Amino acid sequence: VGYLDDTPVVLIDLDAVDRNIARMQEGASAKGFRLRPHIKTHKLPFIAHRQLAAGAVGICCQKLGEAEVMAAAGIRDIFVTFPIVGRPKWQRAARLASEISLSVAADSLPSVQGLSDALAEGSEIGVLVDCDIARWRTGVASPEDALELAQAVESLPGLRFSGLTTHPLPEEAIEWFAQARSLFDAAGIEIPAISRGGTPEAAEATPIEGVPSELRVGTYVYGDRALLGAGIMPLEDCAMRIHATVVSTPAPERAILDAGSKTLTSDLADGLTDGLFGEIVGYPEPRIEMLSEEHGHVDLSARPGAFEVGQAVEILPNHACGVTNLHSTVTLHRSGVPVGPIEVAARGRIR
Amino acid sequence: VGYLDDTPVVLIDLDAVDRNIARMQEGASAKGFRLRPHIKTHKLPFIAHRQLAAGAVGICCQKLGEAEVMAAAGIRDIFVTFPIVGRPKWQRAARLASEISLSVAADSLPSVQGLSDALAEGSEIGVLVDCDIARWRTGVASPEDALELAQAVESLPGLRFSGLTTHPLPEEAIEWFAQARSLFDAAGIEIPAISRGGTPEAAEATPIEGVPSELRVGTYVYGDRALLGAGIMPLEDCAMRIHATVVSTPAPERAILDAGSKTLTSDLADGLTDGLFGEIVGYPEPRIEMLSEEHGHVDLSARPGAFEVGQAVEILPNHACGVTNLHSTVTLHRSGVPVGPIEVAARGRIR
Repeated sequence: VGYLDDTPVVLIDLDAVDRNIARMQEGASAKGFRLRPHIKTHKLPFIAHRQLAAGAVGICCQKLGEAEVMAAAGIRDIFVTFPIVGRPKWQRAARLASEISLSVAADSLPSVQGLSDALAEGSEIGVLVDCDIARWRTGVASPEDALELAQAVESLPGLRFSGLTTHPLPEEAIEWFAQARSLFDAAGIEIPAISRGGTPEAAEATPIEGVPSELRVGTYVYGDRALLGAGIMPLEDCAMRIHATVVSTPAPERAILDAGSKTLTSDLADGLTDGLFGEIVGYPEPRIEMLSEEHGHVDLSARPGAFEVGQAVEILPNHACGVTNLHSTVTLHRSGVPVGPIEVAARGRIR
Repeated sequence: VGYLDDTPVVLIDLDAVDRNIARMQEGASAKGFRLRPHIKTHKLPFIAHRQLAAGAVGICCQKLGEAEVMAAAGIRDIFVTFPIVGRPKWQRAARLASEISLSVAADSLPSVQGLSDALAEGSEIGVLVDCDIARWRTGVASPEDALELAQAVESLPGLRFSGLTTHPLPEEAIEWFAQARSLFDAAGIEIPAISRGGTPEAAEATPIEGVPSELRVGTYVYGDRALLGAGIMPLEDCAMRIHATVVSTPAPERAILDAGSKTLTSDLADGLTDGLFGEIVGYPEPRIEMLSEEHGHVDLSARPGAFEVGQAVEILPNHACGVTNLHSTVTLHRSGVPVGPIEVAARGRIR
């Protein structure tokens, strides 16, 4: 994209985005999943609307603040996949629920009790009970605990039990959910949906039989070095690139870029062990081996003198979601044809 | 700071900031350094003005975009410590130089040639030749190269050779600069200043004899876990804390906070090898052992059940500068007495 010469800048190829949206939607629909993309990757209402137009049933947000931005942009069905804890958040959730169809994940009684207390007459929030099947993050520990929390939800004014949710979905989940279904059946509670997340396993995912299944995926929309490295997305579909400039070549085996951890994050690429901070597209040998805050340190040992001051480079980032959250704007294009800059409206909405 | 209950939020204790500013200024002045604080740590004109009021001769910025924000806030003497490369940046630097006293670091001929070409009649930019003494980032490789670039600067319209700059300052720098001074003397060029950077070594730093010396330091203003761990700052002077909430306790030995890499960064603490992502103040045993984007994973093995859902915690971050760059606002207080939120005006100014 030669029209951009002030760097560093984050470029998003809308053609690649559209391909990624279409492919994921087709795959999900073909298998009987309802697709609910996670907007944490792009934080752009513009792209969320494209995901909905392609057939998504709604969106996911990680934090309430993201959901508030998306609701203000006209999105009507949002699942906040994060525990809502504390009076300010219960009140914000209640306000949001009076405007849109809101559901949230929950794994504790205080969280759902607080939500119910904050809700105004006539408002409703859907609650998906978060299940800690992979034993790594949030969620209730057992199918018995899931039932207990679902029963509490059902008993609380304004709350509607909306299903079970987990991330990721390990093999033992099949057995876990089978047990849960027996328990819920015996208790006379229907499980309205099972929701699962994660781009890396989306291609292999199949719905749990007999229950409406939702698929939550985020990173597929942009792709990154982690997904490329895992063989899940080809380079040409990786829509996010950082254009940077070589600003110094202090030694033949070292070049310095104007993109450091404040541009690329310090995130490593999930699943890769090379310890690099991104890939310079078209240059397999130069290695981004270290970042200062504003400097990218490139090891040119394998190609001494390969870069010169002023040269433009294009970086495939390790982790698209982290990069999105650093930048107030990104610049859209279509296969190199400029579209223009756009504000990352939900950037930094961590509350 | 009990008045804040929506989390995560970045708190800055202005009392600690004022102590840090006064201590560094006193130490620098006593040793004969001119102090030029780096604003990359706070990105707040409000604090930059306090640093100047305490006696700083000017400020440093890493990127031109930061300098533009600080100039718009009334700051008149700025050193941009980063190579200025590419026509858009040369033009921006020239515009800035028509408004304030601007100096920049340079280590290549194209960079200074471009600057000179962009300058309007009557405008001037100071150039400090960047010296790669520690062999790690930017800078010219030898005193001979430094002289050659200084002579080029002197010959270019609008540019003024303003000294030598380096970061950090290893032991061999003494010899390096002594050699440079002989060479520059022989060539009849005065070295107007030597500028060096880095909070970790500031306490031990002494000026190079016979040349006006500037000290560039950033992180001292807030402190962080890296400086605490290095024994450079006590906890009570670490002005930046993140208030977070325990949102889930899925197992006795695991708690989840509402602060992940989008709140704390993925930066590790320079010099520490424990691999942790921050310290929970008052809780030496719970370990922030992993971050998701919005989740902080706390290992409670050493104190099972120590945390409960809804509990507030205070985190000392690994790296203050990275945290600053994530947050659109931070909240100021004085030893717990609220002052209020303030916009991080230079956040995300990576160009």
